Amino acid sequence: MQFEIKDRDAAGRICKFTTKHGTVTTPNLMPVINPNKMIITPKEMKKLFGTEIVITNSYIIRKDDKLREKALKDGVHKLIDFDGPIMTDSGTFQSYVYGDVDVDPLEIVKFQEDIGSDIGTILDIFGTPDQTYIEAKKGINETIKRAKKSIKIKEEMILATPVQGSIYPDLRKKCAEELSKINADFYPIGGVVPLMENQWYSDLINVIISAKKGLNPSKPVHLFGAGHPLIFPIAVALGCDFFDSSAYIKYANDNRLIFPWGTEKLDDITELPCCCPVCSSFTADELKKLQGKEKIREIAKHNLYVSFTEIKKIRNAISQGSLWELVETRATQNPYLLEALKLLRTDENKKWLEKFEPVSKNKAMFYTGSQTFHRPIMYRTHKRLLERFTPYSKNFVVFPEAGKPFSTCYSDEIKQIYSKNSKINIIIDSSLGAAPVELDEMYPFAQSIFPEFIDEETEKAITGFFNCFTKNSNVICWTGFKTLDEIESYEKEFNFNIKKISTVADMQFCKGAGRVLLDGKVEIVKSKKTGKIRNIYCNGKHVLSMRASDGMFTLKLDGAKILHNSFKYPCLRVVVDKDTTDFVKEGKSVFAKFVKDCDPELRPMDECIIVDEKDNFLAVGRCIMNREEMLSFNYGMAVKTRENLTSDDN
Amino acid sequence: MQFEIKDRDAAGRICKFTTKHGTVTTPNLMPVINPNKMIITPKEMKKLFGTEIVITNSYIIRKDDKLREKALKDGVHKLIDFDGPIMTDSGTFQSYVYGDVDVDPLEIVKFQEDIGSDIGTILDIFGTPDQTYIEAKKGINETIKRAKKSIKIKEEMILATPVQGSIYPDLRKKCAEELSKINADFYPIGGVVPLMENQWYSDLINVIISAKKGLNPSKPVHLFGAGHPLIFPIAVALGCDFFDSSAYIKYANDNRLIFPWGTEKLDDITELPCCCPVCSSFTADELKKLQGKEKIREIAKHNLYVSFTEIKKIRNAISQGSLWELVETRATQNPYLLEALKLLRTDENKKWLEKFEPVSKNKAMFYTGSQTFHRPIMYRTHKRLLERFTPYSKNFVVFPEAGKPFSTCYSDEIKQIYSKNSKINIIIDSSLGAAPVELDEMYPFAQSIFPEFIDEETEKAITGFFNCFTKNSNVICWTGFKTLDEIESYEKEFNFNIKKISTVADMQFCKGAGRVLLDGKVEIVKSKKTGKIRNIYCNGKHVLSMRASDGMFTLKLDGAKILHNSFKYPCLRVVVDKDTTDFVKEGKSVFAKFVKDCDPELRPMDECIIVDEKDNFLAVGRCIMNREEMLSFNYGMAVKTRENLTSDDN
Repeated sequence: MQFEIKDRDAAGRICKFTTKHGTVTTPNLMPVINPNKMIITPKEMKKLFGTEIVITNSYIIRKDDKLREKALKDGVHKLIDFDGPIMTDSGTFQSYVYGDVDVDPLEIVKFQEDIGSDIGTILDIFGTPDQTYIEAKKGINETIKRAKKSIKIKEEMILATPVQGSIYPDLRKKCAEELSKINADFYPIGGVVPLMENQWYSDLINVIISAKKGLNPSKPVHLFGAGHPLIFPIAVALGCDFFDSSAYIKYANDNRLIFPWGTEKLDDITELPCCCPVCSSFTADELKKLQGKEKIREIAKHNLYVSFTEIKKIRNAISQGSLWELVETRATQNPYLLEALKLLRTDENKKWLEKFEPVSKNKAMFYTGSQTFHRPIMYRTHKRLLERFTPYSKNFVVFPEAGKPFSTCYSDEIKQIYSKNSKINIIIDSSLGAAPVELDEMYPFAQSIFPEFIDEETEKAITGFFNCFTKNSNVICWTGFKTLDEIESYEKEFNFNIKKISTVADMQFCKGAGRVLLDGKVEIVKSKKTGKIRNIYCNGKHVLSMRASDGMFTLKLDGAKILHNSFKYPCLRVVVDKDTTDFVKEGKSVFAKFVKDCDPELRPMDECIIVDEKDNFLAVGRCIMNREEMLSFNYGMAVKTRENLTSDDN
Repeated sequence: MQFEIKDRDAAGRICKFTTKHGTVTTPNLMPVINPNKMIITPKEMKKLFGTEIVITNSYIIRKDDKLREKALKDGVHKLIDFDGPIMTDSGTFQSYVYGDVDVDPLEIVKFQEDIGSDIGTILDIFGTPDQTYIEAKKGINETIKRAKKSIKIKEEMILATPVQGSIYPDLRKKCAEELSKINADFYPIGGVVPLMENQWYSDLINVIISAKKGLNPSKPVHLFGAGHPLIFPIAVALGCDFFDSSAYIKYANDNRLIFPWGTEKLDDITELPCCCPVCSSFTADELKKLQGKEKIREIAKHNLYVSFTEIKKIRNAISQGSLWELVETRATQNPYLLEALKLLRTDENKKWLEKFEPVSKNKAMFYTGSQTFHRPIMYRTHKRLLERFTPYSKNFVVFPEAGKPFSTCYSDEIKQIYSKNSKINIIIDSSLGAAPVELDEMYPFAQSIFPEFIDEETEKAITGFFNCFTKNSNVICWTGFKTLDEIESYEKEFNFNIKKISTVADMQFCKGAGRVLLDGKVEIVKSKKTGKIRNIYCNGKHVLSMRASDGMFTLKLDGAKILHNSFKYPCLRVVVDKDTTDFVKEGKSVFAKFVKDCDPELRPMDECIIVDEKDNFLAVGRCIMNREEMLSFNYGMAVKTRENLTSDDN
């Protein structure tokens, strides 16, 4: 099995997952195939919806003499006539529905291997939400025991070991940790169907987060039994890679249509609120009039069109960097889901999510409601402001938010203030919280769209952060040019650009980075077209380039060397194995399996310094992963190397 | 022209609009057809998207010798090969884009008539948002003058007279009022394209509302130039019936795809976030690789699939009673639109919207965020609570919200309180504001889904209403059964059901309705299955039936007679013309054109009493329209008669 990250947003990711029957892109959806009754065959699914992977049930195959014989003889791929990857389930869900199953846990694993399943599942113990803590604990212990035994007997097959633990976060996390130790290949999160059926989304979110916290981040995670697109965006944002859907056919049998916002009875619909090929070729009345198998088939097709489109929408949002917007706007369509999102506001969850959040995105951040202020990027921005921003003095002049960029909008005022006293900190009371004017082009301050009047909850949160940020300071609110009278005259020699570069560098790299990078004769080259800062030289060396798109720096080789000399290990470092140093020196990118260690403060898309195990400088690059990921992934790029030492440098 | 309401929600409506080339259902979208260049022909549009009506430009046709000759000879329907209704534009937009047009205002109207246009447009003066008040006023005066002249020369053609007035609400309203006086057939709201192009949605909403306030409510309203589905839901909710789209082709020419949430460049998309037949048959990369006309055509098709689906989605939402949910969830996808929705919170706008809001809906009300609390139904509920609810005493015991229905959830507590003192008012501090326990099955109290923890803004608004509702009262917060010690003992004889019926009747009909309807020996028949109140008899007469779906009453003939005797004209009355009284007596429904007057307090779906011009009782029914609509519509049902006097009664 190979599993590697190709793109990412929130704690979600686009990965390539390789099996012996081919590679699939995640996040992905596996339609459930009933080998006894295929209303739509896997082959048709591939053609219509681009289905890449399916799931079927080995327990059902094994119980039926004909199916078993054929599967053992020809393999499961021939049985259901599909040449892509096939996952098999083990009968655990049947044991939940019917109370018990008459199969040996190891026999069913062996059977899955025998029929050629790409991903086989152990017979785990389904943890129901009504279990006591003791019962749930017993269940995970048995699941872990079976996983340990199962992994010993499996051969080529990818083994899926579901994380159980009912609704108890510590049990979920513990189960995940224990299962990670046995190094299985594929981690379903099990026992979630009743949570979805009852719309207990808060429990669902808690279960996903606690399982993910315990799991090895390099393994694919499958939200087992989740087939409704309503929860796909949030589940992906929390790090789920696979879904499986029997919902498409279950609901079709009941004349119910799946939509991204929920499920509706066909009889309650007067006009089809969907543009899929089914809904584009029938009116609601025509669809209602269909009979029997044809009706079920058309509704099932609609359900799969909608479900696979949601997967594509999510992958597109990850590429664009707008997954949180998708999560939040989807949640406004279901009050229970909207409420469940509040769980992401706890400090503990923000802290966890922040580790995976890219430091910069392709798209501006959009406000969708009071939940927006609690995104991981906001948590990070505020944390870095408190930790890394160094005020020039205790005096803060505060401007209300107006146009962007702030420094252009208030250019006259700012000039006047600096001409009087250059040690004044100029702060914008922005929708993202207090923002030093120097950061006015940096993501997300410039790249965000908030309404002029925001909700009171956000207003309160902004005020909270503002008070925290200006604690122990002398805050002067700008009330027109008469405010200048309140400002004591002081040292007037001043260069705003230097201050800007220094402040952004501190926020982006580490506290003090700006000071060391600009320690000398600084030359700033601006874009002739836009007048914006582009390249920064210090003592004749090119240390930084500012990107127009996100107002952040590309760290140049000479800048990286300065930071390497000035800040001790592990600051900004990615340490690579000695076997790969030569490749890195040639400018090749760093693959995860060669990373020995990494600064725990580095985040996806952060600039970093690549060093060998003796902290010798090798190159500068951009992180694709965070530390935990670099240390656990066996495949994929960890750092994209940008500039390396040439032979001259050595 | 015929225009009649078939269904409704918010201030939106589903209507049948009849022209000499057939009937179309509104809300609807007219694709703009360029007679010189049809990438997709109207015939294809009909087949692919169910297009019922199109718009083309008479100015362009008239300027081109070949087109003009063909149009004059064969008619515009042959020219563009479409046998459904065709609207024509006059060149006004060209005058906006190119500064001026060389055509006489009356000649272009005559030309449209001559080529057989179903709906012809006068040459109005396009009011741009940057106009001064004086300029805008001059513009509307000229537009009104031209409309007056144009209507005199038009024959069979439906005449469209656009409402102008730039961004000045009073000018928009005045223009609408003046144009309504000349009794044209069709009212575009003009000059809105720059507002949409700049995302000035607050101005757009102000413009629509002020135009609608001044327009005759029985006429179709067309948001001229609006072709982006992002604004369709809010525009329909405010009473727009038609849109026209050149966006589909304009954006296609620019490789841009329309989505319900906005427009995206094809180049920025990695996976197509849409399930339309185009997006289901191409991948993003395949679509990018198409060339020339084929690429434009496929993108244009996608754009139209999405746009027409949005129209179907809106009509479905109207039927389901979930249009506000659609408006609000759509707005969370665009911060400017979300901000613009705040305009609907002003008392003046709520008051206007409330008149159109149905009193009951098929679907529960869903919370989507802080905007939900400001829907017209909330405004009405609070208004009626303040005006119509009669407390038993000054003592209010307040329970926090728990399960629904409230009276079942707190049955023990309520019994204990009443056993001590039946004059205590029991109030639930619900997410919809203070709710008397008697209303716990009534729409929207029972039929609403709010999260357990709502946003602080809503919390504050709830508290505001709570304080207003309990002003001058003695409020005791329930803190367990020890609270009973605080309650003074009092009269204990008490019947909760009577109180419930009485309170609901007051809320639904008018203050005091419950008292007179239950003035005698009351018999209550409950459902054997659910135990809920079903039929209410007073002195042997069947006065009311309670509907399980919305907890509101169906007013029975005997109940209606009691209300008719007890409350003076115009309370609950719909007065019909003498020509129709015999039909109504036979149980026929009341058509709008026979309505002489109506209680201004009646709302769509309200129960009402049908009387003749001397206030003689004729029948009982349910309103389909409000007063303004009944008095202005010439077509369609105003009241659905339910029970009429039989010959025995006379």
